[in-house]
Amino acid sequence: MKRFVVTLRCADRPGIVRATSTAIVALDGNILENDQFTDPVTGQFCMRTRFESETAEVDHVRSTLESELTEFTATLGVRQEDVLRRALVMVSTYDHCLAELLYRREQGDLPVDVVAVVSNHPDVEPLVTRYHVPFYEIAVTNESRAAAESELRRLLSRYQVDFVVLARYMQILSPELCRDLNGQVINIHHSFLPGFKGARPYHQAYEKGVKLIGATAHFVTADLDEGPIIDQDVVRVSHARVPSELVSLGRDVERNVLARAVKLVAEDRVALVGNRTVIFSQ
Amino acid sequence: MKRFVVTLRCADRPGIVRATSTAIVALDGNILENDQFTDPVTGQFCMRTRFESETAEVDHVRSTLESELTEFTATLGVRQEDVLRRALVMVSTYDHCLAELLYRREQGDLPVDVVAVVSNHPDVEPLVTRYHVPFYEIAVTNESRAAAESELRRLLSRYQVDFVVLARYMQILSPELCRDLNGQVINIHHSFLPGFKGARPYHQAYEKGVKLIGATAHFVTADLDEGPIIDQDVVRVSHARVPSELVSLGRDVERNVLARAVKLVAEDRVALVGNRTVIFSQ
Amino acid sequence: MKRFVVTLRCADRPGIVRATSTAIVALDGNILENDQFTDPVTGQFCMRTRFESETAEVDHVRSTLESELTEFTATLGVRQEDVLRRALVMVSTYDHCLAELLYRREQGDLPVDVVAVVSNHPDVEPLVTRYHVPFYEIAVTNESRAAAESELRRLLSRYQVDFVVLARYMQILSPELCRDLNGQVINIHHSFLPGFKGARPYHQAYEKGVKLIGATAHFVTADLDEGPIIDQDVVRVSHARVPSELVSLGRDVERNVLARAVKLVAEDRVALVGNRTVIFSQ
Amino acid sequence: MKRFVVTLRCADRPGIVRATSTAIVALDGNILENDQFTDPVTGQFCMRTRFESETAEVDHVRSTLESELTEFTATLGVRQEDVLRRALVMVSTYDHCLAELLYRREQGDLPVDVVAVVSNHPDVEPLVTRYHVPFYEIAVTNESRAAAESELRRLLSRYQVDFVVLARYMQILSPELCRDLNGQVINIHHSFLPGFKGARPYHQAYEKGVKLIGATAHFVTADLDEGPIIDQDVVRVSHARVPSELVSLGRDVERNVLARAVKLVAEDRVALVGNRTVIFSQ
Repeated sequence: MKRFVVTLRCADRPGIVRATSTAIVALDGNILENDQFTDPVTGQFCMRTRFESETAEVDHVRSTLESELTEFTATLGVRQEDVLRRALVMVSTYDHCLAELLYRREQGDLPVDVVAVVSNHPDVEPLVTRYHVPFYEIAVTNESRAAAESELRRLLSRYQVDFVVLARYMQILSPELCRDLNGQVINIHHSFLPGFKGARPYHQAYEKGVKLIGATAHFVTADLDEGPIIDQDVVRVSHARVPSELVSLGRDVERNVLARAVKLVAEDRVALVGNRTVIFSQ
Repeated sequence: MKRFVVTLRCADRPGIVRATSTAIVALDGNILENDQFTDPVTGQFCMRTRFESETAEVDHVRSTLESELTEFTATLGVRQEDVLRRALVMVSTYDHCLAELLYRREQGDLPVDVVAVVSNHPDVEPLVTRYHVPFYEIAVTNESRAAAESELRRLLSRYQVDFVVLARYMQILSPELCRDLNGQVINIHHSFLPGFKGARPYHQAYEKGVKLIGATAHFVTADLDEGPIIDQDVVRVSHARVPSELVSLGRDVERNVLARAVKLVAEDRVALVGNRTVIFSQ
Repeated sequence: MKRFVVTLRCADRPGIVRATSTAIVALDGNILENDQFTDPVTGQFCMRTRFESETAEVDHVRSTLESELTEFTATLGVRQEDVLRRALVMVSTYDHCLAELLYRREQGDLPVDVVAVVSNHPDVEPLVTRYHVPFYEIAVTNESRAAAESELRRLLSRYQVDFVVLARYMQILSPELCRDLNGQVINIHHSFLPGFKGARPYHQAYEKGVKLIGATAHFVTADLDEGPIIDQDVVRVSHARVPSELVSLGRDVERNVLARAVKLVAEDRVALVGNRTVIFSQ
Repeated sequence: MKRFVVTLRCADRPGIVRATSTAIVALDGNILENDQFTDPVTGQFCMRTRFESETAEVDHVRSTLESELTEFTATLGVRQEDVLRRALVMVSTYDHCLAELLYRREQGDLPVDVVAVVSNHPDVEPLVTRYHVPFYEIAVTNESRAAAESELRRLLSRYQVDFVVLARYMQILSPELCRDLNGQVINIHHSFLPGFKGARPYHQAYEKGVKLIGATAHFVTADLDEGPIIDQDVVRVSHARVPSELVSLGRDVERNVLARAVKLVAEDRVALVGNRTVIFSQ
């Protein structure tokens, strides 16, 4: 039995579900999961369907869906479920998010293929090597920024990367790269956005005396800390926690939120509608 | 534009979604929400679809769906969304859950028609009357239990009640009534089931020294505190909380969990699969 | 047995706890609760002690503590626990926070004396009257603002109000009043501050696509939505929730957070250190 | 500046706080944290005080406190804060809890000295060795159980172990060892106790259809899964999660709850009062 994940996006109109389900019946398929949402602001329709079939092949799934959906000019994604999506992880010196992703993948909790890790520092190489993942150090200075980005682009192409994860990567990507990889770069920001954008959010949180601190996983756009939010979480903190303790407590939230966001994207459960995400997760 | 909520249950087989969506297209309908689930244990398929149509009428919706779905021997529910489901609430002397339900309904947060309140005590009558809901006192003693239940059955019939809410009702319903109203009676139990069944759960929780206390909304079966769980929640408590404080903190959890469960049932978002519930809620 | 709540604030120095506990022994007192905190930024020491004594009287408690603590130039608060603190509640037309406070007080869950309710609209009068609390309508227009505030000050004085609760009161207090009542006015803001200051926070949250919405109870300062935070909480929301549903979900968070904050203040569990609060709550 | 952590337990009587604070003043100490609690059921008084002093030595701290507290027959604990408590961790084949503890310790988030790891399987040795912690394999069969326990006792003595952590250790300790190490063995149970004691709790939870699953860290007693609870937490799960997914989600709760419990014990923040714990944590 093969399993397929189909994602679909188009302007909302009657008949889409019938067309899709007709195609799946034609593929001898049985639907396992089906989620859909119509955005009331944009009128955009999004759908994610997971089905199984003994006979279907991925190309045939795609062509069958396309022919049933011709009238809807839909954006279609088709993936055989056991062909994992390919992620490249970028990191600087804080390794807690990277360690979490690698550990969960090894445990079988994160269905993603981590094809390479890139860092602007050498520190995390031993951790990465231990998990038998290729490691690339690409130093970034003001002078080398353009060259570094070219090297990154070569790796993205060479490893056929589906999406990039910034796991506490402290360098900013150029607006061009942000645009080219729109919806394909996940970042973890160590605050409950939109509160505490920018630097040293835990110190900002301490100054402000908030009673909950948080972390936000979001898609990267050229507009810093403003991209579409994928997931967020918070943890209660008391007045007695000094900034260094907030950093420590925040680390736990960061790694959990990022791991959840990467899992959602790896399973094709995240759709983009304007500046907001739709999360298909029962 | 009229809106309809359709629920469907049958053994899982390919083609159900296509049949349903074909019927909705035939009704000039556009799907607003669509949730489905196939239980891996029983092979039971459940679906909830919300759609809008300018021209459809409820009887026509039902007959169109039935003719498309003949081969599936499905259990079908069809409701025009603005025809609210009818609930009868039962209560003893603790009024916090009742007050919460009446308040939320008045605020427009709970789409249900509370057609009557029944109590074995007169205490809550002023509260009920203030909200212009009919109140019935039905005293229950060991001798009067059968007569009381007959009177309750008359009210259920007279008010065409869709479901009953036990909002801290301290009497036990007979096994016959539990069976006849299977899946139609919601109870709130003041513990995080299956922990602390039976009497005085907060005192049990205190003895045990738990760090979280909770409440559970579940369907009533003849098997006390064992029916299918609809919703649960917990709140963190410290060692310093004595049982009377646990009761006070627990009240907040109880009324919130019960209100959420009643909303889910009122919106046809709860399906029963064996002893477990399926919750359709994005 | 009488119970007393003592609060103390001074610059941190060795010997304060010994001095306080010596005074309590002299009063034949037994300590029931004792919390303290030294702020590492300001060096401010705060303490809250609850003790019982058969023989002590409130004036004697105060004088005994003062004589033991002379060398520390401390700010001292002494209250017999069953003499409730006196609160005046201000509200506009949304009544969910007010209803929650009045309901909890009646249930015995909120140890505060609500001495009066003031509104710039007549709408909530029936609710207030039902709980036998004096109601005052003080309309506020640009012209009448100064007169309205004078009337409010007369009520604060007449009712010997300890603190004011803005339970979704939509008018702004003058900077002078904010200053005079520093640390004595609690507001509920319907967002997770510092995110979404200002108007229509739920619509801002929707635009931004956040995955958690929240509410913040804080002390009012002349700097709008910037005063010291007392309590905050959040609730998870999905992409499918439209702003009106966020408003409805947010109402639950608002009333719970405000009720908790009022309880903390009513029990003298909140100390102010700079722009941050210290919460003494086991 | 040296820092000391003092714990104290005795029957509640007036004067304890004065005696303790008098001793600390005599030691030129300044109190940094002070928590206390009197159990209303047993009348037991517990206290934890953290203070700093330039001149004090640990032996002198102890003797000064003892002489001030003679009349209270108190159980006293005195530790210089930078002398970490010594823990031995036991584990079988699931390594997520062990990995979490070792990782947090390395990050500086867990102030404990992990002196050795013992397992009845060889699987986790590479993980342990990577963190430069001594590893001991002690196989356990029905025949070797007594010998295995003797070997464990030798290690406890040799490494001067303060407490033992069962990080998903699947063997049962003998009643004698449980008694001898009363209050010194922390276990993580993969359910929200007292629900789902015994084997395969996630499968039990699935059968029961609970909406939240959890984990419980508790002290081990001879009475299986019944010892005093240190910490608990839960995570929301939907009907769509099959048991293997509950296991995966539960792993996250287990490792976080166990890590928090170990931190609390390592910082002397847990006191035992009958079958309940008192947690001193601001």
